[in-house]
Amino acid sequence: MTKGIGCPYGTHRVLEPKGVLPQPAQRIDNTMEIYDNEVLINVQTLNVDSASFTQIKEQAGGNPEKIKEIMLGIVTERGKHHNPVTGSGGMLIGTVEAIGPALEGKTDLKVGDKLATLVSLSLTPLVIDEIVAIRKEIDQVDIKGKAILFESGIYAVIPSDMPENLALSVLDVAGAPAQTAKLVKPGDTVVVIGGNGKSGMLCLYEAKKRAGVTGKVICVGRRAEALEEIKPLGLANEYVLADSTDAVGLMEAVKNVTNGEMADVVINCVNIPNTEMGSILAAKDTGLIYFFSMATSFTKAALGAEGVGRDTTMIIGNGYTKGHAAIALQIMRESDVLRKRFEALYA
Amino acid sequence: MTKGIGCPYGTHRVLEPKGVLPQPAQRIDNTMEIYDNEVLINVQTLNVDSASFTQIKEQAGGNPEKIKEIMLGIVTERGKHHNPVTGSGGMLIGTVEAIGPALEGKTDLKVGDKLATLVSLSLTPLVIDEIVAIRKEIDQVDIKGKAILFESGIYAVIPSDMPENLALSVLDVAGAPAQTAKLVKPGDTVVVIGGNGKSGMLCLYEAKKRAGVTGKVICVGRRAEALEEIKPLGLANEYVLADSTDAVGLMEAVKNVTNGEMADVVINCVNIPNTEMGSILAAKDTGLIYFFSMATSFTKAALGAEGVGRDTTMIIGNGYTKGHAAIALQIMRESDVLRKRFEALYA
Ligand SMILES: NC(=O)c1ccc[n+]([C@@H]2O[C@H](COP(=O)([O-])OP(=O)(O)OC[C@H]3O[C@@H](n4cnc5c(N)ncnc54)[C@H](OP(=O)(O)O)[C@@H]3O)[C@@H](O)[C@H]2O)c1
Ligand SMILES: NC(=O)c1ccc[n+]([C@@H]2O[C@H](COP(=O)([O-])OP(=O)(O)OC[C@H]3O[C@@H](n4cnc5c(N)ncnc54)[C@H](OP(=O)(O)O)[C@@H]3O)[C@@H](O)[C@H]2O)c1
Repeated sequence: MTKGIGCPYGTHRVLEPKGVLPQPAQRIDNTMEIYDNEVLINVQTLNVDSASFTQIKEQAGGNPEKIKEIMLGIVTERGKHHNPVTGSGGMLIGTVEAIGPALEGKTDLKVGDKLATLVSLSLTPLVIDEIVAIRKEIDQVDIKGKAILFESGIYAVIPSDMPENLALSVLDVAGAPAQTAKLVKPGDTVVVIGGNGKSGMLCLYEAKKRAGVTGKVICVGRRAEALEEIKPLGLANEYVLADSTDAVGLMEAVKNVTNGEMADVVINCVNIPNTEMGSILAAKDTGLIYFFSMATSFTKAALGAEGVGRDTTMIIGNGYTKGHAAIALQIMRESDVLRKRFEALYA
Repeated sequence: MTKGIGCPYGTHRVLEPKGVLPQPAQRIDNTMEIYDNEVLINVQTLNVDSASFTQIKEQAGGNPEKIKEIMLGIVTERGKHHNPVTGSGGMLIGTVEAIGPALEGKTDLKVGDKLATLVSLSLTPLVIDEIVAIRKEIDQVDIKGKAILFESGIYAVIPSDMPENLALSVLDVAGAPAQTAKLVKPGDTVVVIGGNGKSGMLCLYEAKKRAGVTGKVICVGRRAEALEEIKPLGLANEYVLADSTDAVGLMEAVKNVTNGEMADVVINCVNIPNTEMGSILAAKDTGLIYFFSMATSFTKAALGAEGVGRDTTMIIGNGYTKGHAAIALQIMRESDVLRKRFEALYA
């Protein structure tokens, strides 16, 4: 007895409100019996989105038992790990347990493949039976549980030439370096806010490659030690210590290292709210801002730019762009220093 | 005795939280004694942002006294008309009452000039002494009160060749047609969601002009009568009846009128939440979406596109772009049918 074919986008599992897609849905059906065009995954690790996990850790006062409780609560309530405060998810790593018959010949997945989902946890049907371990510093949570991938859901098979957790970390933020590669042109002055973070380092790397010798890449961080630590990696031309929630302070700091010219491209990779205005003021009047941070507020960005009369183009950080997984993993093969740093931190 | 010179961006009036700019601030100082680089305005009419006014009307159950109460409450609490639910503001029309001495020679404003502010009410220090009239259908509220324009605040002097309320309506959404002019290229297929609304009609007009005879402009509305009413204006090539919160329904409707090719550019001009997915699915995989709607959720857009594996570029609707006021007012001079329609609706 099969359950039939579901909508490729997963609307068949939306319980509330009806008619919407699984991502914006309040609650989705997480029964682990698959439709004919779904993939069942035996989940090993969740990589919770940094903005989401930062919020959860704060709410839990750092207490692991409380973190577990909050995470289980979210999944019980929504059928997916969709943080109600930040609106964001994360991704997962696991093993293919079953493939719906309607996908035969359509997918190159096989039962037993180890994969990472590249669609957000905020739309992925999930059941957590048990939380086994929490790696608080790197947003990773090992669980016993299962998840569903819809027909349109994108994924990456885990490469064999690097540790799984390394691949998971890199794939989580794969959209950021791939978009950076598209947006930065030779000669550009580029500011990466949160440049010492996971996505930030990958963006710095791509920005430096694309801006070239005539460009200038500026890494913004809020902790002096963190900046000292990444300087030896040679990812940027300038390192700026500034709290990006202090908009005017950040503007002044960027003014200093650009002879007052400001940035052609600003890439926002932080994991906390209220950094829209700092990003806007760090850019040239006709600059471009790429908001990868999931803590970005649409209205704060739109009305903030208008409020200071800035003609900046502001892009919503689409987590997907063609080839993003390959581009991000390739960085780990190209750059020895970055790979070592990522292995030390995340693997 | 003067108050001294304030920050050009208005940070000197931010009460809470400290260090942020007036737009994201929780509360600003709305004492109506000006700093040396501020302009004092005698306010005549507020044009409340459509997303904000829709929310307020809903909360008030349509009751005018309740609307007044909510509006006064917002200004008392925040020192500005910054809707806490939608995060948005609107703009105002009024007469220059005083100009700070530090602006002499810097501004071409004179006391007595009638102007419209082009920065959001969500960052404008405002005092409402009395709400005199509410024009519910067009989001306009006449008041007795005063407001402050910061040194960096943009404005437009009201032109003498059109009624004030007409100019106010057009200037409120001036960013939308100006951005449309920049984004649409000859031959493009363009979808305007909420095409029968105020910004929607202006966007249709600009889109048709830019897409040219080889392009196709599609107007999406949710009410059959509304579509019938604007058809005679000849602003679009196709008219599609669809509720844009029904993402799959909207996608199918756009598929129908584009031979399955979908849109190069989607412009979202609605005033309600949950239309991100519909916008994404209406666009080509490599399409561009311009979210002018202030009801847009950043995470719903970013994770929604990723969730369906779409490589769309999504732009945050910056309310400002160079020359936007002139571009929008010019439409009223160029297009007789549009001007008549706007005069009938808004003047
Ligand atoms: N668009 C998408 O699809 C997508 C996908 C994945 C992740 N994301 C988002 O991308 C963002 C970054 O993720 P990630 O994994 O790279 O996070 P991460 O490794 O935790 O890095 C965050 C960085 O922001 C820095 N930061 C925090 N507050 C700051 C402040 N006030 N001023 C300057 N820097 C500050 C942190 O500095 P410290 O080291 O001092 O803490 C850190 O360097 C998150 O918001 C996440 O939600 C988006
Ligand atoms: N970015 C900025 O700086 C800025 C500045 C000003 C305004 N805005 C935003 O721009 C948006 C539009 O403003 P406006 O003044 O043009 O508003 P408006 O005149 O009220 O138009 C809104 C339009 O959306 C349509 N609509 C509502 N729900 C819909 C649905 N489910 N499906 C399809 N169409 C739907 C409405 O149709 P009906 O006629 O059937 O109601 C109407 O045509 C608002 O969200 C506003 O906040 C942004």
